[in-house]
Amino acid sequence: MPTLRIDSQTLAVGGKHNWSIQTRTLHGGTQEGVDVVEINNGKLCFAVLPTRGMGIWKGNCGDVRLGWDSPVKQPVHPSYVNSLENGGIGWLRGFNEWIVRCGLSSMGAPGTDTIVDNNGNALEAFLPLHGNIANLPAHTVSIEITDRELILRGEVDETMLFGPALRLHTEIRTEFGTGKLTILDTVTNLGDNPTEHELLYHVNYGSPVLEQGARFQAPFKQMAPRDPRAAEGVDSYDQYDAPLPGFVEQAYFFELAGKRGSRESLAMLKNATGDQASLLRFSLKDFPCFTLWKNTAGSKDGYVTGLEPGTSFPNTRRFERTKGRVITLAGGESRSTKLVIENLDTKKAVKSAEAEIRAVQKLSKAKVHPEAISRFSDI
Amino acid sequence: MPTLRIDSQTLAVGGKHNWSIQTRTLHGGTQEGVDVVEINNGKLCFAVLPTRGMGIWKGNCGDVRLGWDSPVKQPVHPSYVNSLENGGIGWLRGFNEWIVRCGLSSMGAPGTDTIVDNNGNALEAFLPLHGNIANLPAHTVSIEITDRELILRGEVDETMLFGPALRLHTEIRTEFGTGKLTILDTVTNLGDNPTEHELLYHVNYGSPVLEQGARFQAPFKQMAPRDPRAAEGVDSYDQYDAPLPGFVEQAYFFELAGKRGSRESLAMLKNATGDQASLLRFSLKDFPCFTLWKNTAGSKDGYVTGLEPGTSFPNTRRFERTKGRVITLAGGESRSTKLVIENLDTKKAVKSAEAEIRAVQKLSKAKVHPEAISRFSDI
Amino acid sequence: MPTLRIDSQTLAVGGKHNWSIQTRTLHGGTQEGVDVVEINNGKLCFAVLPTRGMGIWKGNCGDVRLGWDSPVKQPVHPSYVNSLENGGIGWLRGFNEWIVRCGLSSMGAPGTDTIVDNNGNALEAFLPLHGNIANLPAHTVSIEITDRELILRGEVDETMLFGPALRLHTEIRTEFGTGKLTILDTVTNLGDNPTEHELLYHVNYGSPVLEQGARFQAPFKQMAPRDPRAAEGVDSYDQYDAPLPGFVEQAYFFELAGKRGSRESLAMLKNATGDQASLLRFSLKDFPCFTLWKNTAGSKDGYVTGLEPGTSFPNTRRFERTKGRVITLAGGESRSTKLVIENLDTKKAVKSAEAEIRAVQKLSKAKVHPEAISRFSDI
Repeated sequence: MPTLRIDSQTLAVGGKHNWSIQTRTLHGGTQEGVDVVEINNGKLCFAVLPTRGMGIWKGNCGDVRLGWDSPVKQPVHPSYVNSLENGGIGWLRGFNEWIVRCGLSSMGAPGTDTIVDNNGNALEAFLPLHGNIANLPAHTVSIEITDRELILRGEVDETMLFGPALRLHTEIRTEFGTGKLTILDTVTNLGDNPTEHELLYHVNYGSPVLEQGARFQAPFKQMAPRDPRAAEGVDSYDQYDAPLPGFVEQAYFFELAGKRGSRESLAMLKNATGDQASLLRFSLKDFPCFTLWKNTAGSKDGYVTGLEPGTSFPNTRRFERTKGRVITLAGGESRSTKLVIENLDTKKAVKSAEAEIRAVQKLSKAKVHPEAISRFSDI
Repeated sequence: MPTLRIDSQTLAVGGKHNWSIQTRTLHGGTQEGVDVVEINNGKLCFAVLPTRGMGIWKGNCGDVRLGWDSPVKQPVHPSYVNSLENGGIGWLRGFNEWIVRCGLSSMGAPGTDTIVDNNGNALEAFLPLHGNIANLPAHTVSIEITDRELILRGEVDETMLFGPALRLHTEIRTEFGTGKLTILDTVTNLGDNPTEHELLYHVNYGSPVLEQGARFQAPFKQMAPRDPRAAEGVDSYDQYDAPLPGFVEQAYFFELAGKRGSRESLAMLKNATGDQASLLRFSLKDFPCFTLWKNTAGSKDGYVTGLEPGTSFPNTRRFERTKGRVITLAGGESRSTKLVIENLDTKKAVKSAEAEIRAVQKLSKAKVHPEAISRFSDI
Repeated sequence: MPTLRIDSQTLAVGGKHNWSIQTRTLHGGTQEGVDVVEINNGKLCFAVLPTRGMGIWKGNCGDVRLGWDSPVKQPVHPSYVNSLENGGIGWLRGFNEWIVRCGLSSMGAPGTDTIVDNNGNALEAFLPLHGNIANLPAHTVSIEITDRELILRGEVDETMLFGPALRLHTEIRTEFGTGKLTILDTVTNLGDNPTEHELLYHVNYGSPVLEQGARFQAPFKQMAPRDPRAAEGVDSYDQYDAPLPGFVEQAYFFELAGKRGSRESLAMLKNATGDQASLLRFSLKDFPCFTLWKNTAGSKDGYVTGLEPGTSFPNTRRFERTKGRVITLAGGESRSTKLVIENLDTKKAVKSAEAEIRAVQKLSKAKVHPEAISRFSDI
C-alpha cells in the first residue's frame, strides 16, 4: 500500500477539527508487510489493518486507550498464522486487535464439521478457531472524505472453488470530532449455491476502561454461563476484578433485549468511576446472539474483556447449526449489518447510556441462569 | 520481479506481428506480491504466474477468452493457501488458472499415504489435494526472444531434507502470430535416492469455448466414469450442457489411443458451432492417463471443464501406486514431457483436427464402460 | 530490510582486518523476501538470516566452508513452510542452515502433547518437528561495531494469547580476525504464567570438515544410541564414512562431562588429516543434553553431521517431560545461554583442543551403552 497522508492542513474540510488519515506499511518481525490505515477524526483515532481483514488494531479517544495488551505485540501478517496449529487454535497467534471479525464461513470453537466435497460427498473437515476472515487481506481499499465524516472501505474475499465464496464489503465511518465509529458490513455469497455464514465481532478492552470495579451493562431477556467455569462467576458476571495471573476465562451467553420494532440494542463497558465507557449499538436483527468474554488474567497474559455481538454463539458451527443459529445465504444473496461504537468520556454521557439501557430492560425481565443451558451451550 | 516491457516497437523481430512481453507484480488482497509475465505473440496472449509454479492464469486468442471464471477472483499468493485446510482440499482456495500443474511428488485426491521418515521408519502422512507445485514460486525466470518465438523459462523447487527433492524446469514457447503454445517440462530428482513423481496438467475452459452444445473429442481405447455420479452421465460424456447451479462434477478416466510409433495423441474441446476449439497434443509416453473433468455448475460457481493429461489418474497416490501408475525417478534422473495447446479459430481448422482425431481412432475400438472400473478407480 | 554495507574502508576500526557487514534481501523462488546479514570479521564470514529466526545459513573460515549441502538449495521464507505437512515434518522443507535453533516452546520429534486451551481444559495438540523458532522472523535487528568486535542483535517472538509467549533475544558476536563466533541467547517468558521451554542448536557440517575419516570428539560420562538403527553403528559412533546414498541417519545421546565448577564442556568435529575442525564450547548448566546426528547419506541428499547442544534430547516434548528435562520459565523469567564456535585451521590448534577434551574426560569414565536406554530414549 502506498504511504499517504491527508489531513486538515491539506484539505479544508472538517471545520476546526485537527483530523488526519495516514497509511503505512509495517516492517520487522511478523508484522512485515502489514498495511495500516490510521484514522484520526480530531477526537477519536484508530488504526485499521487491511492486511488482517480490515480489523481495527487499536484506538484512542482523547487520552483513553481503546484496545488491550496481548502477549502478541504487533499486528501479525497472515502468512505467519497457521490456523490449524496447536490443535486448531493457531488463530490466537495473531490475536491482539481492539475489534476483530470472526467468520465468515465459520467461527467459534474449533471442531470437526461435515462439509460437501467436490464430488458432492460428505467430508469431515476440521474447522479451526474463529475462521479465516481475520487472516485474509483486503483489496479495493479506498478512502472517502466528506464534509462531515471520514469513510474507509475495503473488500475481503473468503473464497474457494466448491465454496464457500463469500465477500465482505466493509465501510468504517467516523464523524469529525466525535468518539463514535460505525462499521457497516455487507457479506455477499458470490456463488450460485446456498452457503453457510457466521459473523461475530470480538470487541476487546483492556486497561484503562477495563479495571477493578469496571462494569458491563446491557438489557437482556436471559443469560447463561457457557460452562461450569463461567458458572462459578455468574453472580458477578457484570463486574470486573483486577488482573489475576492464572485466571481462566469466563464466557456468558446472552439473549439481549431490544427496542420495540427496531430491535435496536446496546451493551456497554464502563470504568470504575463511570467517567469512561465504550458503548456498542446494534440491532438484534443483525446480531441475535451476544457473548461476554471475561479474561481478567495477568496484565502480561492479556487482561481483557470482549463484547461480542454475533450471528450465533461462538460454539462449534456443527453445534450452532443444531440450534438453527447458522445463517444460510442464497446464491448472490447479501446480508448487511451495522455496529456502532461510541466512546463516552463524561459521567453525564455514561449516565445517559445507562438510562437508555434501563429503559430497554424495563420491557423484559432479565433472567440469569445459574448454569449453562442446552439451548446456548453444547453440554 | 522487476517490471519490464519488451515489444515489437522496441525490438525488431517478429515481422509484422504486434507482440509484447510485460512483467508486473500484482497488489491488493490475496494477490499481493504475485508476479505475472504477460506474453502476447501477436495473436495469442497468456499470463504466466511465476509465483504460482509457472501456471498460466488466463489467455486470449484473438477475441476468444481462454480460461474460466472461478469464485476465486484473482491469482492467490501461496502464503494464503494452506493445503491442509478444509479436510485437505485447501488447494481449491487458489484454483482459478487456465493451465495449472498438479504434482510433483503427489497429486490427485487427498488421502493418507505411507512415507519414509528421517529414521527410515514408515510414517503415515496426509497428502492434500493436488500436491504442492502450484503453490511454490519459480526462480531463475528468464525470457528468450528469437526471430520466430518467445520463450519463457523458470524453475520450481519442491524439495525437503529426506526428500522428495524435485525440480521442475519449464520452458513455455510460442511462435509469433500463432494460436499455439508449447510447454516443455523437465522434472529432475535432485537427490541421490529414488523418489516418486506424479504430474497432471489441469487445462480448464469456461465460456465461451465451453457452452451448451460444446463437445469433447479424443481418440481412445477405453473410458470409464470415475464413480457412480459420473456414470449417470456416461452416455453424454462428450457433450456439455449450459450452466446449472448445483451440478455436481463428473470425471471420466481415459486410456487414449495414439499414433503408431510416436504414440502422439490429442484431445479437443470445441464450441457449439465448431468455429472455436482448443486442442491439446501430447504423447502417451509422457502422459498415459487422461481425465476429463466436467463441472458445468452455475456460472458464478465455476462453469468449467478440465482436459487433464497426466502420468496417472488423479486418485490418491496410494491407490495409483497399487496400479503401477506412480513414476519413480532414480537419483539424478530427469523426465521431460511436452504439451502443445493449439487454439483453433476457424471451422476449417476445427474440422481438420476432427479428421486427425478420427484417423487415430480408426486404429482402436473405443470402449465405453458404463460404470467405474477397478483398474481406473478406487472402488 | 534496507541494503547497507559497512566495512573497513568506510569505518576506521578493526586494525588491519579487512572486515565488512552487508545486508541484503534475497529474491526468486522460496527465498523471496528473506533478509540476510553477511558478517565478515576479516577471517570468518557468516550469513545470518533474520527472516528465519536469526539462524546462520552458512559460513567460511578462510577457504573452509562451514555448513552443508541440503537438497533445499536456498534459504526458505517461512511463509513457504507449513510445519504440519508430511505428517508433521514440514520443518524439513526449510532446513539447510549451518546453525539453526530448534524450540522455543517445543522441539524434537513430532508428536501429540497435552496443552491447556483457553478454557483451562486439556487439549491434545500435535507438535510438529523442531518447533517454530526457525520459521519466525526477527524484529529489532541491530548492528554494533566496537573496536574489537562485530555484534549483531535481534529479537524473535514466539507468542500467542493463552501462551506460550516467549521472546528470544540473540546477540551474535565475533572478534576481528578470528575464527570464533559467540551466540548469546536470552529467552524470556513475556507472560505472567509459567510456560515450558526447549532449546536445541542444530550445528551442521558437510564437506570439507565432514569427510571419510573425520572424527567427533567430546568428553562424556555416558552415551547411548537413540534407537536400534543407531545401535548398529555404536562402535564407530565417533568416526565418519564417505557419502553413501541410502544411509539412514544415526543419532547418539550424550551426557557430556564438564569442567569442575563451571561445568564448561566442549565438542569437536575434525577432518581426516586433523588440520581443520569446528569446536563448540558451552556450559552443561545451559545445555545438559547433547545429541550427535550422523547423516552421511549421498552428497546430493545431504551428507551432514549435526552437533547439537540442547536443554533436552530431541525426543517428543511429552517424553522429555516424563524425564524432567523440559524447562519451565516462570512469568517474566529469562534464561540466558552461551554457545561459542571456534573454527580451527591448524594441526596445532586442533591438537590443543584435543588435549583439552582429554583433560576433561579424565575427570569421568566414558560409558558407552551398546543399546538405547530408557533414560534417554522413548523405548
